[in-house]
Amino acid sequence: MANNRKDVLAKVTGKALYANDIRLPGMVYAKVVRSTIPSGRIVSIDTSEAEAMPGVLRVFTAADVPGITNQPTDRPVLCWDRVRYIGDGVALVAAETNQQAAEAAKRVKVTYEELPALLDPEHALDEDAVLVHDSGNMICRWKTQRGDVEAGFAQSKYIMERDYVTPRVQHVCIETEVAVANYDPFTGETIVQCPVNSPFVIRKVVSETLGCPQTDVRVQLATIGASFGGKNYDIAMASSRAALVSYHLHRPCKVVLTREESIMEGTKRHPIHAHYKVGFDDEGRLLAMQVRILLDGGAYKSKTFPVTTRMAIEAAGPYRVENIDTISTSVFTNNVYSDALRGFGSPQVDFCSESLMDEIAAHLGMDPLELRKRNMLREGDQSVFGQTMKNVTLEDCVSAMEEVVQIEDRRARIAAYNAAHTHTKKGLGFALLHRGESFGAAGQGIDTASGMIAVQPDGSVTIASSIAEVGQGGTTMVVNVVHETLGIPREKIKVNRVDTGYLTDAGPTVATRGTVFSGGAVWKAALSVREKLAGYAEKRLGTRDVTFANNEVYENSNWKNRVPLQTLIDDAFNNSDHLNSLGYFAAPPFNYDRNTGVGDAYLSWVYGAAAAEVTVDLCTGAVSVDDYIAVHDVGHALDIEEVKGQIRGGVAMGIGYALTEEVDLSQGRIRNLNLESYIVPTALDVPDQIQAIALEIPSAIGPLGAKGLGEPATCNVAPAIINAIDNACGKRVRDLPADLEHIVLGHGMKKS
Amino acid sequence: MANNRKDVLAKVTGKALYANDIRLPGMVYAKVVRSTIPSGRIVSIDTSEAEAMPGVLRVFTAADVPGITNQPTDRPVLCWDRVRYIGDGVALVAAETNQQAAEAAKRVKVTYEELPALLDPEHALDEDAVLVHDSGNMICRWKTQRGDVEAGFAQSKYIMERDYVTPRVQHVCIETEVAVANYDPFTGETIVQCPVNSPFVIRKVVSETLGCPQTDVRVQLATIGASFGGKNYDIAMASSRAALVSYHLHRPCKVVLTREESIMEGTKRHPIHAHYKVGFDDEGRLLAMQVRILLDGGAYKSKTFPVTTRMAIEAAGPYRVENIDTISTSVFTNNVYSDALRGFGSPQVDFCSESLMDEIAAHLGMDPLELRKRNMLREGDQSVFGQTMKNVTLEDCVSAMEEVVQIEDRRARIAAYNAAHTHTKKGLGFALLHRGESFGAAGQGIDTASGMIAVQPDGSVTIASSIAEVGQGGTTMVVNVVHETLGIPREKIKVNRVDTGYLTDAGPTVATRGTVFSGGAVWKAALSVREKLAGYAEKRLGTRDVTFANNEVYENSNWKNRVPLQTLIDDAFNNSDHLNSLGYFAAPPFNYDRNTGVGDAYLSWVYGAAAAEVTVDLCTGAVSVDDYIAVHDVGHALDIEEVKGQIRGGVAMGIGYALTEEVDLSQGRIRNLNLESYIVPTALDVPDQIQAIALEIPSAIGPLGAKGLGEPATCNVAPAIINAIDNACGKRVRDLPADLEHIVLGHGMKKS
Repeated sequence: MANNRKDVLAKVTGKALYANDIRLPGMVYAKVVRSTIPSGRIVSIDTSEAEAMPGVLRVFTAADVPGITNQPTDRPVLCWDRVRYIGDGVALVAAETNQQAAEAAKRVKVTYEELPALLDPEHALDEDAVLVHDSGNMICRWKTQRGDVEAGFAQSKYIMERDYVTPRVQHVCIETEVAVANYDPFTGETIVQCPVNSPFVIRKVVSETLGCPQTDVRVQLATIGASFGGKNYDIAMASSRAALVSYHLHRPCKVVLTREESIMEGTKRHPIHAHYKVGFDDEGRLLAMQVRILLDGGAYKSKTFPVTTRMAIEAAGPYRVENIDTISTSVFTNNVYSDALRGFGSPQVDFCSESLMDEIAAHLGMDPLELRKRNMLREGDQSVFGQTMKNVTLEDCVSAMEEVVQIEDRRARIAAYNAAHTHTKKGLGFALLHRGESFGAAGQGIDTASGMIAVQPDGSVTIASSIAEVGQGGTTMVVNVVHETLGIPREKIKVNRVDTGYLTDAGPTVATRGTVFSGGAVWKAALSVREKLAGYAEKRLGTRDVTFANNEVYENSNWKNRVPLQTLIDDAFNNSDHLNSLGYFAAPPFNYDRNTGVGDAYLSWVYGAAAAEVTVDLCTGAVSVDDYIAVHDVGHALDIEEVKGQIRGGVAMGIGYALTEEVDLSQGRIRNLNLESYIVPTALDVPDQIQAIALEIPSAIGPLGAKGLGEPATCNVAPAIINAIDNACGKRVRDLPADLEHIVLGHGMKKS
Repeated sequence: MANNRKDVLAKVTGKALYANDIRLPGMVYAKVVRSTIPSGRIVSIDTSEAEAMPGVLRVFTAADVPGITNQPTDRPVLCWDRVRYIGDGVALVAAETNQQAAEAAKRVKVTYEELPALLDPEHALDEDAVLVHDSGNMICRWKTQRGDVEAGFAQSKYIMERDYVTPRVQHVCIETEVAVANYDPFTGETIVQCPVNSPFVIRKVVSETLGCPQTDVRVQLATIGASFGGKNYDIAMASSRAALVSYHLHRPCKVVLTREESIMEGTKRHPIHAHYKVGFDDEGRLLAMQVRILLDGGAYKSKTFPVTTRMAIEAAGPYRVENIDTISTSVFTNNVYSDALRGFGSPQVDFCSESLMDEIAAHLGMDPLELRKRNMLREGDQSVFGQTMKNVTLEDCVSAMEEVVQIEDRRARIAAYNAAHTHTKKGLGFALLHRGESFGAAGQGIDTASGMIAVQPDGSVTIASSIAEVGQGGTTMVVNVVHETLGIPREKIKVNRVDTGYLTDAGPTVATRGTVFSGGAVWKAALSVREKLAGYAEKRLGTRDVTFANNEVYENSNWKNRVPLQTLIDDAFNNSDHLNSLGYFAAPPFNYDRNTGVGDAYLSWVYGAAAAEVTVDLCTGAVSVDDYIAVHDVGHALDIEEVKGQIRGGVAMGIGYALTEEVDLSQGRIRNLNLESYIVPTALDVPDQIQAIALEIPSAIGPLGAKGLGEPATCNVAPAIINAIDNACGKRVRDLPADLEHIVLGHGMKKS
């Protein structure tokens, strides 16, 4: 099947130029000297030996930063005096080669006064806790409240309490962090080329580092080797450091991290500890729920705020609960800092809520899917946060999933297998999904996007958008938006890489907002051009009631009344008109009360349903995912192959979260600093066939009815697998990952 | 005085990176093999010896062009079979180094069948004339007609007939033509970096050469070492040739011309022969005028059409003539081809009309300035093309000029000098100026512009415009437009280099259209942002009646009621609003009848007046310009230093046109191929002081009232000097330049 992605050829042939492939004349390299302790004060930095090394140009410290090293509680480009985790940057060595910089970095001698470290988030808010930042250890606390929880529990026949724990995992982009900066002393302009999900954040941080207006820094997106929520703060560090060196040396500078450096200093998905208390009756009706979630934010704040809030909002899953009381709390520690990782908090709470549903069903002896159907949100229901849910398509997703899974037949086949096998057992698990699109009411920062299109005299089109392509296909998405709106062939549509020199900030490519926001802005621009062309069509066809397709425009009720699109484009240009339009998409104002935790939490919601069939080896603890059925309502598939690719990639990532991935952190030090010990799924760990099913129930908001998919694709994978494991062998895993020891030794036993 | 130009530091220190400074990894070089005869057929091309030379990669001919070599009567990237002037490209040699390519180019053996050449434009339309192009030798003919010329002549007491001849001169940019192209076989995209006045023309020609959509070619403006109307078709050739090599070799390619190559192949200002017949009475009233102008367009058409039409419209000068009949005709010849050169035809006809005014005055014994005042256009007058002239500021310009010149005192001083000197004589000359802005009714191509601004969260601003900075200060101009409109300091405003990947075509930076069009589009964008910010101001100040200045907004009637601009910017972003706007400026529809030559010829008109004081050495023929007073109504000086710089540069260029410059063409071959024989003024040839006076009578059209100045600055310089020479020593020069031989030997004697 033809693939519409324009970057495919270069990527599959290995010819794509990534940021680390960039070589500029006179370019130097810089390496970071990192803190070796989780908490302390820098007493002195002796750079003399390093500066005497071959090729070394200069060693920089925080005193060399012309602007500011950081905003309060943000990670500093270089630490002034205090280090807060093992990985904090203390000095920066610039040399002619990367190897020379690395060698010299080892010779920089830093003397610390060690301070007590706060490593356990459970004690972060104790009265006598060590303060990670002077402003206190609380990052934020968010609640969702509805009804009367105590009354709800009082009415409940059954009350169940469970603790769920999720691990610290990492983005593991194939490409590590890298940035090239080039400061021009004659214009004061710094050009940064880097792979990033939020070019404007890089611009802001670099301009703060250099102490210049934001527009003196121009960030140009490089080809990116994935993001998954990373390639943000860590790229800001790499970029600011490269810019700092370039600023002082008047030569371009590259900073590129090894895998070890990337794992040591880079953000991780927030590990959480959640306590659920749920009251229910014999029919499985959820009468009350109390949830307490604690997130370890690590040493700096990053996007912990919106992650914390999303967890409070989504903790109960896509279900009706009349009485609820959820509090989500995030704290600073002297551990490696946390950030969003494909899910912005959802994968953690989806694991909890979907595990809990299976546990309730087991308690009642009820089919777990039946329990979900009895409680799941339907059109017009009030959510736990008091939003009247519209366009709820969860039921459609469940039906589509059931149709593919053929549950009764499959259960019979599994039962037969299990009867015939002693050491291996098969199981089937389910997990539903709801997820708020974009930042929502709890969001911080820009939740808007602009997009521009320009139809050229020959009928080709340029598109500019400020939302970064992070490998997910955002470029193909906007091409398709214009293609479908104007009927112009894809091969005549070109998308510019994001360059902060043009449009304004559209926020990062996270939170499943790319399609809705970037696509939405470009769609508005395309609609405005179509409106103008429709005016020219009216002069030629006598009607505006027309369709744009296949480079033609024809009357809807008489397709023989038609005109080539190029004729209308010529008409416009001959009339001194332009076909250049700037579209803007903003989230509508939210009706949400932060104090009560009640209101319309997200712009819109997406839904999904999944089933996993697994085989568990009872001797080794090995779990094999044999079949995976993922249904997602994508609203409108702008590119069906891209949609399926997103789903398959999300499932692969979810398998890692379920079964193998965990950063092994001890006393603030990561022990598995490379991929031989931090285990991500390989092709062999992923089912041969992942059944990716896209429902297309149009959104009222997104471009051409499209909905977001990036994060939903992975959010409910782990609980489906965990539920299948339990179904196979009766092992209920409440702390991820369900690795070999876990399966063999049981819950909680694997923890040191 | 502080200079607001942002490129000044890099340029004066020699650090600015021009296109020839660009080095890309793996870059190859290409040299053109040019026709050695003015007209002929290519019989064969033997590349074997060249291809065996060291470093040579391949020799290309027209057969290697994947798209088309040219549009009809446009210059071909490489000639198929027919060559039409000495300089036409026949083959292209690609090698590892520029020197290797140049050496090998000499070894390519081209066998021609010579054809008769048409070298004299006076015979181009003879019935038996050799055809330069099969479609005929006429490029275009344009007329301006009003009243009854025969009746006018019948009423006239005096009838005078004069022939004026202007030379072929060249742009002589310090930087010769250069382009770097990089074709990416994986994306099909070609990036061209070049110094050019019309990036979108380059894109069009390169895409035609490669046979791809326009958006597969991205042209990025390099720092430019001047244009003056050049850096257009010649850059299209360099770019297409570089792209052709890159397309085939999959390596970046640079084409850079030596000065000799640049002079040999590059466009020149159209040489003309004009015949004027004028009828007038004792009061100096102009009763009838008949003008016939012949332009030598050379071998290809370039922008000869709009140049021909402008000459017909402006031929009579800024004067009332009731009865007129002007025909302007341009023809193809086998000479080097012609194009606009800072004036688009105006310098030629301004020389004619302003010389004629002095000749009439001399005939009547009238003061030449008095004659002009009696005839010059005033508010509400009908022009010779029937346009009712509004906002005519010629009288203001003349008054301002008289005030500075102090005519009576100066004449007394000159008379005293002349009485005291035998071999040197001083004289004073005048020339008035009117000039239509932009392409006008006769224009071809895009006469519109779009411009975008984006105010960033920290109050800095980016500007994107599609009109190229050609060294004239267009960048500073748009910065000032935004600065004055929004009250944001200049140092926080950044302008992107033109990149065809963003906005649509805004036409070339020619015809004095940069400020009005690009500035106008950016102004509209800025006004739209100001309107939005005024809304936020109203919420805080209680009124929209506010001024934006110095990063603040205050109530017009109570300046103490004020708010920092940053507060309003914060308000906008906090409200999910954007401060990103796309402005569009188009010339209004013209009411002009091409058949009768009557109507509103140009969007708007600018005016000026000049006086030159010269000393003529009667023995050597040397003319020294001692003082030059140039008055221009610029509407609103967006940057007074830039305005004065434009005027001074224009005067220097006019001195060359008046006194020294002429391409010495014989049998289609240029004999003065370098600057030791083609003489441009040096610093020593320019008066120490050029008195540049800018009147500011606001335009109703341009941004903040600004008017264009680029070409007017040079258009009336030559006649002011020529009139001063006549005033000094009675030598009436009717064919430029007034070089040494001319002054000593007299009119017509210097021609071979």
